[in-house]
Amino acid sequence: MAGKKVLIVYAHQEPKSMNGSLKNVAVDVFQKQGCSVDISDLYSMNFIAAATRNDITGELCNPQHFRYGAETMEAFKKGVLCEEIIKEQKKVQEADLVIFQFPLYWFSFPAIMKGWIDRVFVQGFAFDFPSIYYNGLLKEKLAILSFTTGGTEEMFSKNGVSGDIRYLLWPMQHGIMHFCGFKVLAPQISYAPEYTGDKERKDMLLSWAKRLETIWEEQPIECTPPWYFQ
Amino acid sequence: MAGKKVLIVYAHQEPKSMNGSLKNVAVDVFQKQGCSVDISDLYSMNFIAAATRNDITGELCNPQHFRYGAETMEAFKKGVLCEEIIKEQKKVQEADLVIFQFPLYWFSFPAIMKGWIDRVFVQGFAFDFPSIYYNGLLKEKLAILSFTTGGTEEMFSKNGVSGDIRYLLWPMQHGIMHFCGFKVLAPQISYAPEYTGDKERKDMLLSWAKRLETIWEEQPIECTPPWYFQ
Repeated sequence: MAGKKVLIVYAHQEPKSMNGSLKNVAVDVFQKQGCSVDISDLYSMNFIAAATRNDITGELCNPQHFRYGAETMEAFKKGVLCEEIIKEQKKVQEADLVIFQFPLYWFSFPAIMKGWIDRVFVQGFAFDFPSIYYNGLLKEKLAILSFTTGGTEEMFSKNGVSGDIRYLLWPMQHGIMHFCGFKVLAPQISYAPEYTGDKERKDMLLSWAKRLETIWEEQPIECTPPWYFQ
Repeated sequence: MAGKKVLIVYAHQEPKSMNGSLKNVAVDVFQKQGCSVDISDLYSMNFIAAATRNDITGELCNPQHFRYGAETMEAFKKGVLCEEIIKEQKKVQEADLVIFQFPLYWFSFPAIMKGWIDRVFVQGFAFDFPSIYYNGLLKEKLAILSFTTGGTEEMFSKNGVSGDIRYLLWPMQHGIMHFCGFKVLAPQISYAPEYTGDKERKDMLLSWAKRLETIWEEQPIECTPPWYFQ
């Protein structure tokens, strides 16, 4: 595991938050393992979330009718994506493992992290046709979603008001990570840290640290429907 | 139906796109009905997607430890949210029907639209505890997701590579719209307009126009798990 490279894509406004602590714990464990860790701290970077024509620095293929997907695919091939995107793609390219560390906003990523995905996972870089799912272009890499929730574990159970947490994992794990070929490891879910005690929050951090110690031995989870919707 | 108010939250960079045309069709139909239509054209507005402390114009409750949800809830009560959010909340408040018009990006909203949701649906405005789901604060309103896809209808079928489209509707329709109390009408899905002919694209626009003529008579769909995951 020494020598492995980890990228943490991190989206929280407050360094002292649970998400900040989970990120710091991961940095510590990986550094002790002799891994290198890169961090994309999206709020600190003022990362742009919106997908616009500014993402292409060269001339557009069709300035009369702007198509974001088609234009960014061509710009990737020609090397004329904007600097911000190229930099993030390099980090992904070098990583063996990408961890997404975020608070769940509305059953999904916060917009700033969704924007990172919308803009960085360009066709030609992260996927192509027919290179999707098991043939996705990032298939040599691992991905983990590590997130905190507002609701409790009970609320996110099969008979809870918010339904089985696996339902909302589907678009993120299957539709994005698996689509690009990532081998997806089990999500790390820290339930409702705001509504729990110091002891429980400490335990969440400890269990993340403990898991990361043997993370390189973990097997990917199954991302296809039966796992989710039984 | 005359006198009803419609808000279209619209996220596409190109006015000549299918999404632009679907938006225009809706404006036409509703104006003929004597309804008023308001549009939030997110790219044209340069709408900010990231949820930051700039969303609160007054003093923070806890500047030492920033919590976006708690701070925006307080700021809403005190009327010190930023102008951009207050304006959007007023549009929602006045609307009988909110239509989200967007291209599906990675099994979900484009980041700019997710940012609109993250920032506008503040606690105290769109929901509160225990005012969620059937008691959500926007329960007198209707919502529709109208979107285009990259993949075909077959890809988004139960045995297709991308799975039943209803799986990815879950976080958006249940986790967001239903959570806030909206009565959700059936989604309007325009499959793969980029890969089809002019005739088919025209038919998509016509079918949307036709549906909207009797939209006020429609019954909401069931948003809870059995509908999705059978």
